[in-house]
Parts: sequence; structure tokens; C-alpha cells
Amino acid sequence: MDFWDLVICGAGPVGCTIAERASREMKWRVLLVDKRNHIGGNCHDSYHDSGVLIHNYGPHYFRTNNKTIFDYLSKFTEWIPGNYFVKSYTRGELFDFPINIKTLEQFYNCDLTVKDAENFVEKLRVCISNPANSEEFVINKVGRELYEAFYLGYTLKQWEIHPKDLDASVCGRIPVRFNKDCRYSDYKYQVSPKHGFTKMFQNMINNPLISVMLNTDYKEIKSSISPRIATVYTGAVDEYFDYKLGKLPWRSLDFDYQEFQQPYKQPCVQINYPNDFDYTRTVEIKHVTGQKSHNTIVAYEYSKSCGDPYYPVPEQKNLSLYQRYEDLIASEQSEKNIFFVGRLATYRYYNTDQVIEEALKTFDKISKLQETQN
Amino acid sequence: MDFWDLVICGAGPVGCTIAERASREMKWRVLLVDKRNHIGGNCHDSYHDSGVLIHNYGPHYFRTNNKTIFDYLSKFTEWIPGNYFVKSYTRGELFDFPINIKTLEQFYNCDLTVKDAENFVEKLRVCISNPANSEEFVINKVGRELYEAFYLGYTLKQWEIHPKDLDASVCGRIPVRFNKDCRYSDYKYQVSPKHGFTKMFQNMINNPLISVMLNTDYKEIKSSISPRIATVYTGAVDEYFDYKLGKLPWRSLDFDYQEFQQPYKQPCVQINYPNDFDYTRTVEIKHVTGQKSHNTIVAYEYSKSCGDPYYPVPEQKNLSLYQRYEDLIASEQSEKNIFFVGRLATYRYYNTDQVIEEALKTFDKISKLQETQN
Repeated sequence: MDFWDLVICGAGPVGCTIAERASREMKWRVLLVDKRNHIGGNCHDSYHDSGVLIHNYGPHYFRTNNKTIFDYLSKFTEWIPGNYFVKSYTRGELFDFPINIKTLEQFYNCDLTVKDAENFVEKLRVCISNPANSEEFVINKVGRELYEAFYLGYTLKQWEIHPKDLDASVCGRIPVRFNKDCRYSDYKYQVSPKHGFTKMFQNMINNPLISVMLNTDYKEIKSSISPRIATVYTGAVDEYFDYKLGKLPWRSLDFDYQEFQQPYKQPCVQINYPNDFDYTRTVEIKHVTGQKSHNTIVAYEYSKSCGDPYYPVPEQKNLSLYQRYEDLIASEQSEKNIFFVGRLATYRYYNTDQVIEEALKTFDKISKLQETQN
Repeated sequence: MDFWDLVICGAGPVGCTIAERASREMKWRVLLVDKRNHIGGNCHDSYHDSGVLIHNYGPHYFRTNNKTIFDYLSKFTEWIPGNYFVKSYTRGELFDFPINIKTLEQFYNCDLTVKDAENFVEKLRVCISNPANSEEFVINKVGRELYEAFYLGYTLKQWEIHPKDLDASVCGRIPVRFNKDCRYSDYKYQVSPKHGFTKMFQNMINNPLISVMLNTDYKEIKSSISPRIATVYTGAVDEYFDYKLGKLPWRSLDFDYQEFQQPYKQPCVQINYPNDFDYTRTVEIKHVTGQKSHNTIVAYEYSKSCGDPYYPVPEQKNLSLYQRYEDLIASEQSEKNIFFVGRLATYRYYNTDQVIEEALKTFDKISKLQETQN
């Protein structure tokens, strides 16, 4: 079936972005294939049976510093402000998280100015030059007590790996702020698509040149399809190669959606539970979607090692295994025009803006491919 | 591409039903193709940007007398009671519709028992033996005054054809009741899928054997696909044959969705406007979906002659044209295993339960086909 110019496996952010560009810019016919029965990948949102709009695969807090990405997506959605506030429940209280001066004041029951706070933390921290792992990284930054209250338990639940055995960069993702900014992140653009992610992606691919094939395993149809220009693969890289070199481990999540007959259940969208409970966090996405309703849904998230892949496991042995798969990718690419992009195909913990940036870069490469051919 | 056993053009009620049966009962691989970017055909419902669940292509009041159909669909959805009440706005007042004894009492400002009512209507009606058209049919049943108040204007707006020029059966669809039953219909099962039609159809086709290809024009891919067993075509019959014999006319609808900041705007799901306004009816589907929300959506429906096909136009010349297409269908079927089913393919004003019945019958034929081949 040589009907399509471009075949894309995976209708997530990467697949939708490349499909949009290829159909609009190049007038290519695109086949977009997905295993699931919906588009949007893990950004997918939908109305729960209770009528409340939920994020089906965990909260997506869209944020970026990249104006190009923001402008590009703005063609397909209006935005609402990104109401992203996270608290952490420890020692029976809710604290601002990531740690800021207010967290310190509440935790140590004192009043602090910015200057005080820096001196205060200087006394808490345990100096470790060149922290070798996440435990050392955090202790070096804020001391053992805050580490044990906010980081240790959460990391253990999230990864089932002790922070001692995790690269410093894992806990290094989370800032510590010497101010009273209680937002979750400090990116320039913190906005949420007004009518949800799925509608935004629908608007992107709403083009008669794009055929969307859902509920379909790409593996099963790929031998029957030969795209004229190229293939984009956004699925799991080890699956593509039939796990020839072994299985890459992923963390997965279970969601327990609970309905409450009240407009809001939590003071903010996300509460982390480093200790005391089996779930890692509870998410009430209504704080972000801005939906008005009598009732609400809270998702209780449980981290687990099997199921749909969410997060690559940040251990050196896994990165090494992925690098060996990269050799297979290279040899596959020497035979055909195939591009491996996105979280699953590159075993990287990308945020949504980052994968869209990767998708746009990939589209640039693919479009040049045709110029070469012509 | 001979990968599929069955290819179905159209993911509406017929397509989903046959796909479900074929995958579950025969273990066939099914490709379900639709031009639109969603399944469910005109039964499709979705959440409006306001958060209110709406029926995107006009209200669907599911009702049937057929227990088999009811039981079959019950495997894929829970039900809520079908809260189907229609009123008609005429002479500045809202009346029960279809006409029942309460309508007569209010219209003629009197009190009536069942016996009274029959005598009363006997005096109103103008006896016409063998009514030749819809006007004669209604006047023969209830007299000229009720005809002019409730039927004439609505029919003109709905069909742009005078009731004099419409077969008696067109207005004959609407009962007149000699009781005080104010429900819209008197079918045995009057129920609505608890989480909407789209979720029900999603549950039907949630099978890895079924690939769903959206946003795809079947015409453009059909030459590349050769199903092992059969093709089911639920699109417009004249389009299939490239309008070779001429275009079959359809009535279409425009919807103007208005949001109101109150739980309900109307006393019931549907109000007919035979006179005074350009729209034919207003539909507040929340009365049927049972959704709880602060706000509501009312769809103002305008009838028109071009756009998406909704209702075949009940004139003899169109039925004759369709019959000539049936000859083409027959010759097409002598060459390949193709089945024409559903409203669009058979130019019939089917209700949802009726097309599902047709779909189940078609599946029986197709499944026997394989027995013959084996």
C-alpha cells in the first residue's frame, strides 16, 4: 500500500505535530497509526463518567521557555493560565513544594527573610563536594531533615530505587527557591489549552490529508505499508526491535479516580505524599482545567514497575542498554528513511514542550529529505 | 492490502455493530473507516466547550420494542430512563406534543374525558376517505385548526414541501393520543445510554481485531484494500456510484448552540416551533443525558437542503431514483461481496434501533457467506 507519503506510528504529541507539519507544509498524505483508541498519547484528556474533565495518564502541566513552541501551539488552541501549584504532605501538614522560604518557615516554625533563609539553609546543609547521587545532592543542598521529610520516601515510591543509587540529576530536577514563589515551575509560559489537550491535538490533525488509524498495532500492518517519503516511529524502541537486546525498564502508574460531591477536594492541583500512604500523589486536575461543576475527581496515583510505559528508569545500566539499541536504529536508518522520536523511542524523560520541539526538528529533517530526492 | 477480513465504510451504528459481531463472533480482523474524525455517526455525542454533553447531530431518543436489540446494546452500556418529552409552541403557548387529550383541553380551553375527547375530535375532523397526502391525513384525523397550528408550518420548515405534496405516511409518523400520556413515544424500551452514545459505541468496538481509520475517505483507499470476506458500505449510495444516475436529495440541519448560565432553560428536552421562528425546534439534551451542571446548552435547529445528509426527502421521484440505484447495487453485488446498509446507503429514514436491527441481519448474511466459502 504505497498510498501515503508519510507513515507515523503513534498519535501522541510527536505524531500529531509531524502529521500537521507534513500535511500543511508539504501537502503530504499522512497515515497516523495508534495502538490506543484515541489520539494525544499520554496527554490525552477526556470526560470522566461523572462529567469531570480528567487527564487520563497523569497531570500535564504545559510549560515552556520556547516562544516558537508556544506560538506554534497557539495556532491550535486558546490558553488559560497554568494554575500549577503543588503541595507536599508530611508530618501531618501541607507544605509548599518545591521547597521555598515559606516551606522553611512552616517546617521550622520561624520567620525568614531572603537573607535569613540563605544563612539558615547554610547551617542545615551538609557540605558534600561533587555529590555522587540524589541523596548526596539533596543533603548537600538542604540537609538531612528536609531530605527525609520531602525527598526520600517519594523517591523510593516513585522509582523503587534508593536516592543513594540514583544519579544526582534525578532529584536535581526539583528546584529549591530562596523566595516565596509557590508556583510549581518558573517557566516563562505556563499555560493550559483552554479546551484540553485532546481538542488541541484534534485541531492540529484536522486535515483531509491525514488518515488516523486507531486501535491498530503498527507492528501488524507495517509490512503492508510502504510510505513514499519516510516513516516516523514514536513507539518503544525495544519493542520495535522485538526486544532483541533485552527489555528497557519503565515506571508505570495506576490511577484510582475518586469522585467527590463538592466543587473542590484539595487546595491545589497536586499533593505529594512522600510518606504515610501507598499513593505517591493525588491530582485534582479541575484546578488546571478550570471546569465549573458541583462534583470533582481526584486521581490517586500509584507508581509501579509494569504496565504502560511512563518514565524511563534513570539508571546507568538502562542508558547503556538504550545506547546499544541506538546502534540498531542506525543500521535500520541506513536501509530506510525511518525516524525514532519521542519519549518511548529515545528513552528520555521529555516534557510535552520538549517532545514537540523534537518533532519540529524531525519534520525539518524529513522535509529536506524530499528536497534531496527531488 | 489483504490484511483484513472485513472492511466497513462508516463507523456509525451499523458499522460499529457489524464490526463488533464480526470481531467477537468470527474472530475476523476488521477495518472500520470513517470520513469524520469520530465514531458513532450521527449518534455521536461529545462535550461542548462549555462542559455540557451534547448530541452533535441532533437529539437521539433511543427507543425500541425489540428486546433483542435492547439486550444486545445492554452489553455495552448501562441505561438511564429515556426522559423524552416534547412540547410545541403555537399561539404563544406551549402544548404537549404529540397531541393528546391535555393538548386538546388546553387548545380548546375545556375539560375532556377519554370518551368526550373522541366525540370532540369526531366533530373537528373532516372526513376524507383514503387521504392522498399528509394534509388530508391530518385534517381527516384532527381537523383543519389543529393541522394549521401544529403541522402545516413545521412540515413546511422541515421539508420545504407542502403537506399536500407529501405522502400521508410522513405526518402519519406522529401519533394522536386519546389519553393523557405526554411522553414523546410509546415504545416499550425508552432508555438512553448512561454515559452517552459515543461511549457505548466505543465499548462495542474496543477489540484489538478492529482497526479504526478516521478522517479517511473510503473512496480514496478502496482500490488499495481487498478484504478477505466482504465489504460493508454504509455511506451514501449515490456517492458510491459517483452520482451516475443523479444526486439523491437529503434534508440537512444547522445547529446553533447557545449557552445559558442556569441549570435548565426549557421545561423539557425538545420544543417544536411550527410557526413564528426560523428554527424548527430547540433541543436541550441535558434533560435526556441527566448531566448535572450550573450551565446548559440549547441547540436551535434550522432545516436546510444542503450539507451533511440527515433525512431522505420523502417524495416519489426520489424513491424511484433510489430504486434505479438498487439495480447498480445488484450488479455490484454480483461481482463482489459488498453489502449496502443503513440510512445513507438505503435512502431510508431509520431510527437507531432499526439500523442496528438491519446491521445484525447483515452480519448474519455475511457470516453465512464464510460458511459457503469454507
